Amino acid sequence: MSSLASANQSSGEPEDYSYGNWYIDEPTSGGDASQPDKAILACQHSFPPSLYHTCLAPLSLATILLLSLLVKRRKLCLGCWHGTFGLPSPWDFLAEESGRLVPVAVFGILFTNLCVLGLDDDPLPFVPISSPAGQGYWKTLALLYYPALYYPLIACATVQHQAGYILGCLLSWAHCGVQIWHKVECPETAKVYRYYSLLVSLPLLSGLVLLSLWYPVQLLRCWSGKTAPAGPEVVEESYYGDYLRHVLSGKRSKGSFTVTNPNFASRVLFCFLSYIYIPQRGFRLPLKLILSATLAAITIYQEALLFLVAFVPILQKARAGITEEVTYLLAGFGLVLSEDKLEVIELVKYYLWALEVCYVSALVLSCLLTFLMLTRSMVTHRANLRARHCGAAPDGGPKPQRQGVSATAIFCWMSFSGYQTAFVCLGLFLQQVVFFLGFVVFTFLVIIPILYSRNLLLFRMLESMWPFWLTLVLAVIVQNLAARWAFLESHHDQRELTNRKALYSITFLLFPINVLVGIIVGICRMAISTLFNVIHFCQMDLSFLCHGVDTLDPGYRTYCYYLKMEVSQSHPAMRAFCFLLLQSPGSRGLAGAQAVLRPSDVEEGIHLLQTKNPARNTTKSKQSRVRWGLAYTLIRNPSLLAFRKKTLAGPLANGNQPNPSKP
Amino acid sequence: MSSLASANQSSGEPEDYSYGNWYIDEPTSGGDASQPDKAILACQHSFPPSLYHTCLAPLSLATILLLSLLVKRRKLCLGCWHGTFGLPSPWDFLAEESGRLVPVAVFGILFTNLCVLGLDDDPLPFVPISSPAGQGYWKTLALLYYPALYYPLIACATVQHQAGYILGCLLSWAHCGVQIWHKVECPETAKVYRYYSLLVSLPLLSGLVLLSLWYPVQLLRCWSGKTAPAGPEVVEESYYGDYLRHVLSGKRSKGSFTVTNPNFASRVLFCFLSYIYIPQRGFRLPLKLILSATLAAITIYQEALLFLVAFVPILQKARAGITEEVTYLLAGFGLVLSEDKLEVIELVKYYLWALEVCYVSALVLSCLLTFLMLTRSMVTHRANLRARHCGAAPDGGPKPQRQGVSATAIFCWMSFSGYQTAFVCLGLFLQQVVFFLGFVVFTFLVIIPILYSRNLLLFRMLESMWPFWLTLVLAVIVQNLAARWAFLESHHDQRELTNRKALYSITFLLFPINVLVGIIVGICRMAISTLFNVIHFCQMDLSFLCHGVDTLDPGYRTYCYYLKMEVSQSHPAMRAFCFLLLQSPGSRGLAGAQAVLRPSDVEEGIHLLQTKNPARNTTKSKQSRVRWGLAYTLIRNPSLLAFRKKTLAGPLANGNQPNPSKP
Repeated sequence: MSSLASANQSSGEPEDYSYGNWYIDEPTSGGDASQPDKAILACQHSFPPSLYHTCLAPLSLATILLLSLLVKRRKLCLGCWHGTFGLPSPWDFLAEESGRLVPVAVFGILFTNLCVLGLDDDPLPFVPISSPAGQGYWKTLALLYYPALYYPLIACATVQHQAGYILGCLLSWAHCGVQIWHKVECPETAKVYRYYSLLVSLPLLSGLVLLSLWYPVQLLRCWSGKTAPAGPEVVEESYYGDYLRHVLSGKRSKGSFTVTNPNFASRVLFCFLSYIYIPQRGFRLPLKLILSATLAAITIYQEALLFLVAFVPILQKARAGITEEVTYLLAGFGLVLSEDKLEVIELVKYYLWALEVCYVSALVLSCLLTFLMLTRSMVTHRANLRARHCGAAPDGGPKPQRQGVSATAIFCWMSFSGYQTAFVCLGLFLQQVVFFLGFVVFTFLVIIPILYSRNLLLFRMLESMWPFWLTLVLAVIVQNLAARWAFLESHHDQRELTNRKALYSITFLLFPINVLVGIIVGICRMAISTLFNVIHFCQMDLSFLCHGVDTLDPGYRTYCYYLKMEVSQSHPAMRAFCFLLLQSPGSRGLAGAQAVLRPSDVEEGIHLLQTKNPARNTTKSKQSRVRWGLAYTLIRNPSLLAFRKKTLAGPLANGNQPNPSKP
Repeated sequence: MSSLASANQSSGEPEDYSYGNWYIDEPTSGGDASQPDKAILACQHSFPPSLYHTCLAPLSLATILLLSLLVKRRKLCLGCWHGTFGLPSPWDFLAEESGRLVPVAVFGILFTNLCVLGLDDDPLPFVPISSPAGQGYWKTLALLYYPALYYPLIACATVQHQAGYILGCLLSWAHCGVQIWHKVECPETAKVYRYYSLLVSLPLLSGLVLLSLWYPVQLLRCWSGKTAPAGPEVVEESYYGDYLRHVLSGKRSKGSFTVTNPNFASRVLFCFLSYIYIPQRGFRLPLKLILSATLAAITIYQEALLFLVAFVPILQKARAGITEEVTYLLAGFGLVLSEDKLEVIELVKYYLWALEVCYVSALVLSCLLTFLMLTRSMVTHRANLRARHCGAAPDGGPKPQRQGVSATAIFCWMSFSGYQTAFVCLGLFLQQVVFFLGFVVFTFLVIIPILYSRNLLLFRMLESMWPFWLTLVLAVIVQNLAARWAFLESHHDQRELTNRKALYSITFLLFPINVLVGIIVGICRMAISTLFNVIHFCQMDLSFLCHGVDTLDPGYRTYCYYLKMEVSQSHPAMRAFCFLLLQSPGSRGLAGAQAVLRPSDVEEGIHLLQTKNPARNTTKSKQSRVRWGLAYTLIRNPSLLAFRKKTLAGPLANGNQPNPSKP
C-alpha cells in the first residue's frame, strides 16, 4: 500500500522514499525505540500535482495571450505602437513604482520553487521520468518552465486594467488554493524531515496568499473609483517630487549620524548604526535592490532550515540511540575513553550534545552575521547611489570608456539579483562551515579541557613549548615597552626619537625572534583576511581584492556596472521632472502631437523650486522659463526615454543650466 | 666507529642520525640496489663546533668591550657625552650610509644561522643537551646567542677607526676560517640530503668571505690615506646633495614609463615594467628595505632548497624502487590499474614521475612569483616613499593622531624586517601547497585523461551534467548577445537602452538560471581572491582587506607605521642640508661651541640651488641668506636630530620658506 501510494505521488520511482527512510534511520540502528518517523506514510494527493500543472500551464498561457491582445488593442486604440510587441511586461524594474509588493511576492514564489526543485525527484510532475539521468534534463528544463508558469501572475498587475486584475484574481486563487490544499492534505513527508516540505513552502504560500488578496483589492478599487488604476503613478510622482523638493531645499538629511566629539562609546554607537538601515526622507532604494534583499532573506531562511533539519534530528536520534555497542566500536579503533562502559556512553552522549550545540550556535551566528551584512549592504547601496546621483566618480570601479549605457552594464544589471542571491547562499554555507569548525575546535580543545580536564592536547602542546611562546611574548612586550619609555622623549608636547644606538642594537639582537613573531603575525593575517572574506562574502558592494585591482572581483564588478545602469536610467531628479510634465493638465488631452508650451506648465515647474527670496529671482526667471519650455517640448518626444540624458544635456549645454543632479 | 663519530659531532644523541638514515630509506625498501646514501658516515670534525664556540664567544665579548672602551675614550676626548652609554651601535639603520654591504652581509649570516638552527639537534654546541625537551629550551636561548655572537662583526665597522677594522679582520677571519674548514672537512651529512648542510650554509659562507675581504680593504684604505675612514659620509653627502639637486632642478625622472597612447601592447609592457625595479637617479631605497629584500631573497633560496631536497630525492628513490609488490599492495586497496603486472609498474612509475614534475614546476613557479612580487614591492616602496616625502597623506593608512613619532611606529619599525622575512617564508609555503595541488589536479584530471584516456572522472562528470552546463553557458551567451544587439541602440554615436519590455521579461525568465550562474561566479570569486592573497602574501604594501578597514591587516599596518617612522626620521632633503652644513670648512675645527655664521656657508647652500636666472634671484637672495643662517645656527645644536622637524618648522613658519620636502 505504501509503495503504491508513493508511486502515485512521484509517478516513477517507488524505491526512492524507502531509501530516504532507511538513510535517515541508519545512524539510529542502535536504538529501535526512538523512531516515530517510520510511521509517516507516503501521502496520496486527491488532486495530484501532475493534474495541477496540466490545468494551470494552459491557463497561464491563455492568460498571457489574453493580456497580449488587451495590450495590443489598447495601443492600437491610442494610435501609436511605440515598438511594443504585445507581450505584457513583467514589471518596470527601473522605475520607482510604488507597488513593490507584486514583484517581491512573485520573485519570492519563483525562488522558493527553485529551492524545492533542488531536492525534488519530480521536477515536472506532468512528464513521466524514465531514469535518474533523465531527471537531470527535466530539472534543467524546469528552470525555464517555472518562470513561464508564474509570468502571468506578475504581468496581470502591470497591464493596469480591470480585465488584468480579474485574470490575476483567478490565477492567484487557483495557485493558492491548490498549494494550500496540497499542504493541508499531506503536511508530512518522509524526505529530509517530517515537516520539511511544509516549512520550505512557507514563503511560496505566503506569496500566493498576498497575491490572492492584492488582486481583489485592486479590482475593488478599480470598480469603486475611476482614478484608482493610476494610483501607483500618483504615488510615484509624489515620491519624485518629494525627492526633488528635498534636494532643492538644500537641507541635509537628519538621518545620518554625525559625531563631532568621537569618544569611544559614540564611536561604537556610530559603528553599530552604520550597520542598520534607517530609511531617510527623500530617498528610496530601487526596486532591484529591494528584490535582492527580499530574495536574500528568503535564501537565509531556506538554507538555515535545510541546515537545521538535515543535521540536528540525525544527531538527536544518534544521541538517543547510543548503546554499549559504541564502547566496543571505539575500542576497536583503539579509543578507550574510560574503563566504565556506562561512563563511556555518557561521555559519547555528552560529546554529541556539545557537537549539536556548536552546530546550532554556528548556524545562529551565521544567520545573524549574514543578515547584519545585508542591512549594512543596504546602507552602502544608498550611499553609493546618492554619490552617483551627485555625479561622483565610482571609487575604484571600472572607468567609463564612453558616455551612455554599455552592453556589459545591461548584462550585469540583468544578472545582479541572481548573483546577489547566489552569493548569500554561498556566503552562509561558508560561514556555517568555518564557524562550526572553529566552535568545535574551541569547544573540544579549550572549553572541555578546562571544565573536565580531558583532551588536554592543546594545553600539553603549549606546555611543552612554553619557553618558545614565553620568549615571543616577552620580546613583543619588551619592544613595546622600550618603544614607549626608552626611545621616545617628550619636548614641548612633541614626542621625538631618542637613544638611537640602543634602538639599533635591540633591532639587531631581536631580529631572529621578530622573524618568529612574524610567522605568528602572518598566520593571524591569513586568518583575519579569510574570516573577513567569509563574513563579507554575501556583500557585492565590497571587493575582496586590494585597491586598484578591485574590479577583477567578479561580484564587485557586477555591482559597479549595475549601479552605473541604475543611475543612468533612473535618475530620480530627471524622473521627477518627466512625471511633473507628463501630468500637467494641458498634456492629458493631447496625444501624438507636439504640445504647445503654456504658462501653467512653466509655473508648475517653477513652484517646485520654492525660492524663498522672489526679488532675487526675477532676473533669472526668464532664463528658467525658456529652459523649462525646452525641457517640456523634449518631454513630448515619444523616444524621450532612450535619449533622455543626451537630449537634455545637448541643447541646454549653451546656457548655465542648474544641474538637477547636484543636491 | 660510526656511532662514536656521530656522538663526537653532536655530543648527545647518537641514535638520531641512524633514525634519519632509516627514515629517508624507508620508501625505497622495495629496491635495495639504489641506495648509495647509506655510505655517508657521520663525519668527525678535527676542530669541533663546541670548541669553536667556546673560543669565539669570549673573543666576541672581548671585542665588544674593547670597542666600547674605544668609543668612550673618543667621546671623552671630544669632551661631550651625547648621552651614549659606550656600546658601539650596530649600524645607523635610519641613515643612508653608503656602506650597505656590512649590515646586509651580517643580517644574511644571522638569518642563515636561524635557518640552520631550525633543523639542528645541537643549537648550542658548547652546552651538553640532556633531553629532547631541553633541546627546545636551548634553541630558544640560541635565538639570543647568535645575534650577540655576530654583533661585533657589524659593530667593528661602525666605529670607523683602524682599531675597529683590525678587530673586525681578526673576527671575520676566525669565523670564516673555521666555517670553511668545517665544510671542507665534512661536506656531506646524513640529514635530509647528502649536501643539504653545505648548501644551506652557502649564504653564511659568502657573507663571511665578504666581510673578511671588506675589513682588510678598509684597513688598507685607512693606512694609505687619511680621508678614507670618512668615505661613507662623503658618499652619503654626495647622494643627499644629488637628491636635493634633482628635486630642486624640477626635472621629472626619466625612469618612469609614461604611456600617452595606451594600446594593448604598450599597456602590457607598462604592466610588466611596473613589476621591475629600475633604479632612478636621485633616489635610493632606505637601508631597512634593502635589508628586507636581501633577507627575502635568502628566504626564497633556503625554502626552495628545503622543498627540493626534502621531497624530490625521496620520490626519485621511490620510483626507482618500485617492484611487483606494489601491484599486490594496490590490489589490496581494490585498485587494479591493469591486468598486466609490468604495465602496472610502468603506470605507477609514470604517475610518480608526473607527481615529481608537478612538484618541481610548482616550486619554480612559486619562487618566480615570489621574486616578482618582491621586485614589485620595491617599486611600490619607492612610490610610497616619494609620495610621503612630498607630504602626501597615506592612502587608507592609519590617520596620524598627533605630530611626531609614536611608540607604535617605533615598534613597527623595529619588527619590519623580521615580519617581511616571515611573510616571504609563509607566502612561498602557501604558494607551493596551492600550486602543487592545482597542478596535480590539473595533470591527473585533465592532461593524463586527454593524453591516455585514463582517469576520465572529470570528463564523465561533465558528460553526465552536460544539459546543466549547456544551459548555463547558453543563458550567459544569450544575455550577452541580447544586451549587445537587442537592448542597445546607437543614435549619433551615443548608445541608449531600448526594448525595455523584452529586457524585463528576459530578466524575469532567466532569474533562476542566473542564480545558478551566480553560484559559479561566487566560486570563481572565492578562487580569485584566495589565489590573489596567496600570490601577494609576501607583499606587506598591500592590504588584504577592503578599502576602509585595511589597517586591520597586521602586515599592512606594520608597513604603514614603518613608512611613517622612516619618512619622519630620515627625510633626504633635510639630511642633505644637515650634511652640507656639518661638512662646511668652518665647522670642522670648532666643536662644542655655537659656530658663527660666515658668508662661505651661505654660499655653499645657495650654490646647491643652481638657479639658471641669477637676475631674478637677487631680490630673493637676502631672504634666502637669512633663512640659511637660521638653519645653520640650528644645525649646530647638539640635539638637532631629535628636534629637527619641529625646530625647523617652528621659527621659519613666519616667513614663506620654500618647503624642502616638496619636490
